[in-house]
Amino acid sequence: MRVANLNGRLVVTAPAGAIDIHTASAGRFGPDPQGVYDVWPDFVEWARTGLAGHQPVPYDAAQLGAPVPRPRQVFGIGLNYREHADESRMDVPAEPTVFTKFPTSVTGPTAVVDLPASTVDWEAELVVVMGAVAHHVQATDAWSHVAGVTVGQDLSERTRQLLPPVPQFSLGKSFPGFAPLGPEVVTIDELPNPDDLEVGCSLNGEILQQGRTKDMIFDVPALIERLSAIVALQPGDIIFTGTPSGVGHARDPRRYLSPGDTLTTWVEGVGQLSNGFVQSPVT
Amino acid sequence: MRVANLNGRLVVTAPAGAIDIHTASAGRFGPDPQGVYDVWPDFVEWARTGLAGHQPVPYDAAQLGAPVPRPRQVFGIGLNYREHADESRMDVPAEPTVFTKFPTSVTGPTAVVDLPASTVDWEAELVVVMGAVAHHVQATDAWSHVAGVTVGQDLSERTRQLLPPVPQFSLGKSFPGFAPLGPEVVTIDELPNPDDLEVGCSLNGEILQQGRTKDMIFDVPALIERLSAIVALQPGDIIFTGTPSGVGHARDPRRYLSPGDTLTTWVEGVGQLSNGFVQSPVT
Repeated sequence: MRVANLNGRLVVTAPAGAIDIHTASAGRFGPDPQGVYDVWPDFVEWARTGLAGHQPVPYDAAQLGAPVPRPRQVFGIGLNYREHADESRMDVPAEPTVFTKFPTSVTGPTAVVDLPASTVDWEAELVVVMGAVAHHVQATDAWSHVAGVTVGQDLSERTRQLLPPVPQFSLGKSFPGFAPLGPEVVTIDELPNPDDLEVGCSLNGEILQQGRTKDMIFDVPALIERLSAIVALQPGDIIFTGTPSGVGHARDPRRYLSPGDTLTTWVEGVGQLSNGFVQSPVT
Repeated sequence: MRVANLNGRLVVTAPAGAIDIHTASAGRFGPDPQGVYDVWPDFVEWARTGLAGHQPVPYDAAQLGAPVPRPRQVFGIGLNYREHADESRMDVPAEPTVFTKFPTSVTGPTAVVDLPASTVDWEAELVVVMGAVAHHVQATDAWSHVAGVTVGQDLSERTRQLLPPVPQFSLGKSFPGFAPLGPEVVTIDELPNPDDLEVGCSLNGEILQQGRTKDMIFDVPALIERLSAIVALQPGDIIFTGTPSGVGHARDPRRYLSPGDTLTTWVEGVGQLSNGFVQSPVT
């Protein structure tokens, strides 16, 4: 199953179109795309039979917003692929390196993002969406607490991110629109192997990142185990699981995003983001 | 004015007792203590005359929860007092060092907190509560976007916080109960000088921290200017503004919290927290 946010309303999508869930469920599930994660097991149970007989309606993909528009908590994982840790000249961490993207940074899969500086970088990522409270969960039981996965870009203003004396990544990764998400949250049963998916991005058609989630240092079950050992993860919380090698800041010469660029970000079998960039005049 | 969370309901407090706002306003304002920040200017306007004639009811302070129970975004500021930066052997930052305390760490002013490790430390702080959206706000206009201030403890598990290779403070500061808040959110007009307040804490009666907010490197207006230059602060978002010197990790020998301790945390003219500690058996 694939759930999305069509003009602010919760839908299930299929190749033929979208089914509005508030309508199809006769009001049992609200229209808010964020709300469904609070009742995820009920929703999945209902959807087994409740979608039958409802005709998908064709839609314009440009009308899709973030499928998780207002997560309570956003976990970002740094240095979670060995080659990216290497290119960042960092040691491989013994525990996940955890920051946040403040929730107001979330935007949709085709949003145009304003560049606040000349050192904004790309990071293609698999994003996990929680479907249940998870506290002290073991890795072997972790996927059962997940609603699904989606595609994310962890846009990063490197100058602010890396400011001494103690670089705290969160603020430089939290400008408005710095967390494009979507287009759909895809349940795990849609994926042949949710632990081995290609993750990548291209800039104006040139492939810049291309990795596989099997090369994560802490895979999704391990991340949920380690995070939930500390924080009670909430339904609708999301985890940016880290990026493979190929970011612009690690290139020689360094490369960053420019106004007019188009950044395409994908996760195999999950979906694709397409984000443009502008630079507003300084006011 | 002082607003609080009494058994999960929004109240205004006075020496004689508490007035339930949902009742006093005949339903105009909901009972949820978090919700009032979304309508803060309306609430302040109503309260000028709406509280008259309502008899405060005595209450048990042990029934007070966090006055901001579910902030969308929690900003933590590191190294914001020169003497604390010095004791931490860190340079004074050129921009605020910003992390998060994940929102599930919020708890009430008299909560008993479980110690997950033997290296949990105290950090007494002034906490700012936003009363309006603030984006690109200048320091001179910053206080007008604030609902009020409260007292916070930025409890910190130092081992997890400082883990190499890139210490990201957020996770080690986000165990359940690691953000005691309260007892009340106090509006600025109640404070003779909101930019110069004593902040301190004592452990089992021994004073361990005692600083003044005038010694912040980035004062409250500067923090709001710098944060809002990046993130659109939302009503009910909170800012932990940093701690003065005297934390346990910087002492020789180092000191940390133990089961049975009582930690009292105050901000002059604002209020006082009193938190106990236990250590649950490892399961």
